Amino acid sequence: MAVVLGPNRYGKAETRVVRVTRDGEAHHLKDCNVSVSLSGDMEEVHRRGDNAAVLPTDSQKNTVYAFAKKHGIGEIEEFALLLARHFVGSQPAIHHARVEVEEYAWERRGPHSFARSGAEVRTCVVHHDRDGTTTVVSGLRDLVVLNSTGSEFHGFVQDEYTTLPPATDRVLATAVTARWRHVPPDGGEPYDHGKSYEEVRRCLLDAFAGTYSLSLQQTLFAMGERVLLTRPEICEVRLELPNKHHFLVDLSPFGLDNDNEVYFAADRPYGLIEGAVAHDDAPPAGPAWD
Amino acid sequence: MAVVLGPNRYGKAETRVVRVTRDGEAHHLKDCNVSVSLSGDMEEVHRRGDNAAVLPTDSQKNTVYAFAKKHGIGEIEEFALLLARHFVGSQPAIHHARVEVEEYAWERRGPHSFARSGAEVRTCVVHHDRDGTTTVVSGLRDLVVLNSTGSEFHGFVQDEYTTLPPATDRVLATAVTARWRHVPPDGGEPYDHGKSYEEVRRCLLDAFAGTYSLSLQQTLFAMGERVLLTRPEICEVRLELPNKHHFLVDLSPFGLDNDNEVYFAADRPYGLIEGAVAHDDAPPAGPAWD
Amino acid sequence: MAVVLGPNRYGKAETRVVRVTRDGEAHHLKDCNVSVSLSGDMEEVHRRGDNAAVLPTDSQKNTVYAFAKKHGIGEIEEFALLLARHFVGSQPAIHHARVEVEEYAWERRGPHSFARSGAEVRTCVVHHDRDGTTTVVSGLRDLVVLNSTGSEFHGFVQDEYTTLPPATDRVLATAVTARWRHVPPDGGEPYDHGKSYEEVRRCLLDAFAGTYSLSLQQTLFAMGERVLLTRPEICEVRLELPNKHHFLVDLSPFGLDNDNEVYFAADRPYGLIEGAVAHDDAPPAGPAWD
Amino acid sequence: MAVVLGPNRYGKAETRVVRVTRDGEAHHLKDCNVSVSLSGDMEEVHRRGDNAAVLPTDSQKNTVYAFAKKHGIGEIEEFALLLARHFVGSQPAIHHARVEVEEYAWERRGPHSFARSGAEVRTCVVHHDRDGTTTVVSGLRDLVVLNSTGSEFHGFVQDEYTTLPPATDRVLATAVTARWRHVPPDGGEPYDHGKSYEEVRRCLLDAFAGTYSLSLQQTLFAMGERVLLTRPEICEVRLELPNKHHFLVDLSPFGLDNDNEVYFAADRPYGLIEGAVAHDDAPPAGPAWD
Repeated sequence: MAVVLGPNRYGKAETRVVRVTRDGEAHHLKDCNVSVSLSGDMEEVHRRGDNAAVLPTDSQKNTVYAFAKKHGIGEIEEFALLLARHFVGSQPAIHHARVEVEEYAWERRGPHSFARSGAEVRTCVVHHDRDGTTTVVSGLRDLVVLNSTGSEFHGFVQDEYTTLPPATDRVLATAVTARWRHVPPDGGEPYDHGKSYEEVRRCLLDAFAGTYSLSLQQTLFAMGERVLLTRPEICEVRLELPNKHHFLVDLSPFGLDNDNEVYFAADRPYGLIEGAVAHDDAPPAGPAWD
Repeated sequence: MAVVLGPNRYGKAETRVVRVTRDGEAHHLKDCNVSVSLSGDMEEVHRRGDNAAVLPTDSQKNTVYAFAKKHGIGEIEEFALLLARHFVGSQPAIHHARVEVEEYAWERRGPHSFARSGAEVRTCVVHHDRDGTTTVVSGLRDLVVLNSTGSEFHGFVQDEYTTLPPATDRVLATAVTARWRHVPPDGGEPYDHGKSYEEVRRCLLDAFAGTYSLSLQQTLFAMGERVLLTRPEICEVRLELPNKHHFLVDLSPFGLDNDNEVYFAADRPYGLIEGAVAHDDAPPAGPAWD
Repeated sequence: MAVVLGPNRYGKAETRVVRVTRDGEAHHLKDCNVSVSLSGDMEEVHRRGDNAAVLPTDSQKNTVYAFAKKHGIGEIEEFALLLARHFVGSQPAIHHARVEVEEYAWERRGPHSFARSGAEVRTCVVHHDRDGTTTVVSGLRDLVVLNSTGSEFHGFVQDEYTTLPPATDRVLATAVTARWRHVPPDGGEPYDHGKSYEEVRRCLLDAFAGTYSLSLQQTLFAMGERVLLTRPEICEVRLELPNKHHFLVDLSPFGLDNDNEVYFAADRPYGLIEGAVAHDDAPPAGPAWD
Repeated sequence: MAVVLGPNRYGKAETRVVRVTRDGEAHHLKDCNVSVSLSGDMEEVHRRGDNAAVLPTDSQKNTVYAFAKKHGIGEIEEFALLLARHFVGSQPAIHHARVEVEEYAWERRGPHSFARSGAEVRTCVVHHDRDGTTTVVSGLRDLVVLNSTGSEFHGFVQDEYTTLPPATDRVLATAVTARWRHVPPDGGEPYDHGKSYEEVRRCLLDAFAGTYSLSLQQTLFAMGERVLLTRPEICEVRLELPNKHHFLVDLSPFGLDNDNEVYFAADRPYGLIEGAVAHDDAPPAGPAWD
């Protein structure tokens, strides 16, 4: 019986880079948070502290900044791919790179003045392996949405611990975390990740708003399906939807009715619905979701 | 030498109330966080646990919900005033009420579907005393803004611990917390708090974007002054501006220049600039800022 | 009618300094978060961006590090006083300094190995003015305590919005934020701030545990009074006690009783009790609580 | 090409339960946060909103409370197993349950008075499948540790973006997230999860303190190996170790040396080292780490 090293990775997390591009009077801004994770020939460093195969996480941070200068930061998926290919391509001991980028949105307030727009964050995770395979997952988090009607919940299992009454008109609210996996490119023209992001986001919002919901699971599936049926570049969608409960307040002790008007927005506990929706012919995901 | 009770207050904090108003097919949404603090004849409860003067914080919470039903939630300042006057007016032992309301903004995505818009929060704090005086402070927090040029910092004190080089072109970024005190009404028509909020917010954003800045203090003063010179209903503005440092990354080790293009957005430490700007004839603030 | 500059201050917030002292094989660790706020002749910088009176916040940060080296970090109150006196004493334009220090506790795990002990944070705020006056407030935050019995709440006001039933046995839990003001030294020997802190903390914990409580206000007063009657170096105590509600779960639908055994620990809303307890002959507080 | 439902699960997250047990005068306290995730025949609810197979998350919450009453809360692994087996055993449509429990520690301050001890959280994740397989992973998070010497880092890769100087004496600090998988029971007596937890925790702390470190990876491996070689009930350990950088402050501009005495504790970016250490004959993990 021996002790073995299992799956492992290391890197620099949360390098905060802001890239300004000057276009005459007008400036453009990209504000990102980059996390790199590398893996490969790491037996010796774990067993003996021999760092001969270790590219310091400090160098990874430097690379992020240098690449931001040399290549600019276009769509975050492309920036992540540049970095991932660089680490695997330049370091023989690095067999695999995972690069995650978060982007914070700003709206223009002047030629070189900006205001953060929204709590919502655009995300991507890219994997690149020395065997040449690459996976790209785009996403968003902290997109908070609410339907004030058009949601029911009934017909559920009644066990000995069930006290929930059926609901025929309830508030449905969630903070969407969505990630979607791209069909691997076929060698043709790369498509526009910025446009793809906007369109997927619209699909998610429209499906949430437009689905008459009998359960949050149904809404989840509808959101994923809408993306898959609309956007051919996407083969799988994964969603995490906390059910942000809004409880109708009992106002009867005060001689008041409450016809779905006054709600208590609860913190915890909350329902949590997680699920994947995919094309049946989606290629294998490999490490895409790691 | 005796032990005495000093300033004190108690109440229910962070009652999360969502009010839906149905206007045919279209719904309207108000999403607030209400904190009540009451003070008055509280000697006995502190010294002997005699609760005869204590309106339970649970009742305060109930009142928030009942008032949301009975009166709706219009502008948050008005809702806060309703509550403050109610507590002082209905409870002889309560001499003073402080009501704070935060409002979270939503944008419409359908007749009854909404998405949270932004991390920014609208705020107000209202004080009402049984002697009839009332103060109203409106505000916002978490409004993150950045100018990518138009900011310098030099000519400062050089002491033995000063190593900072002068800067003639730097990024200036902050997360604005602003509060502004309203001129007490003269008995005329109450004005529109919603419009006032939008206009003050615009002043703050415009002054931040439009001030060529030699120091964050100068920007702070310009923001306050812009509000005071533009909005006659406001007599004092208080601002808390953390200087969210964006440090230029040294790319010279990689043979790259960095002409104000690539920045590291730092977390801590940060500069913190706090200041009040007021009309010289502003009436006394009383408890407005407590 | 003119626009005037009101109260203002500026400085470097949250400088994170860790000081290691080597005592042969054994190391000692002080882990602090230092925030400096200065005020004085700041009219020009606000009105015209003239920084001639401005000691950069970067220099303030440097001073914290240099003082940590030169003087070590003993009790945080003393380190804060050193810094406050330095800024006021060395800069003619600085008339007043406020220095706040948080200290994170570590327990020893080896001669030079440590583990963070607890979420609780020790705090202090020191003010020093060029007129020579100094105030010292020590404190703590995030000290979470709970009594599982020995707490009642009844006999309170019943208004039209009161539905809370009286309680004769309830859980009482809170996260203590406490600050206590020191009697100004009389020119005699300075006392031991470390010992004082430990003793005040013990008073707070003992009074919380030992008070049969009819209201959280009563417990608050008892905690402050215990400190004042035990520790002559303290003249005023201020407490903020959120009532972390633990609601008894109704298990009757499942044929189970619940004799104060199973509780739901709620997040929001929460009661919030704030109060000061002081000696009647306490000297004026001045800016101590700002 | 069809749209299919992929991996999915749903449940009630973060049910906060506090269980008091009265043993005469002395009370005992268990303070937990329970998250349940169920999966099974969920095609219909996703595709058509048919809830016939759905046990409401509200019922799951009720079950947590009812079980806390009926069975008490012993070791969290046992409480999680009780719940997981209940959901799978009582609901034909539920094929698999995942139950996660966090436990917050309290220290006794009196017969029925307690204070929270530490920011550290004990955790477990249990999986139970209708085929009878069960996996148990125990863990902890937010255990912050620091060695003020005994750590080096050099001999690493030098690429074109490497500027980090070699270090022969540095601070090594991290916030440990550790999870360890238990060997499936062989039908013999169940062992004491409480004692196992204490012993594994001690192994982690001792290995961190006792390893002269040439890289954080080496420390990670040593921590996992120590557990595996000491505790026969554990077959795999997974660790996530953020490298909480402590940078030596350059005090030379102030005429001061800094012989590893004064450090800046940085927030971001940070190194992140993740790895698994296992016995080579560990049984398959199945869903243990999901």
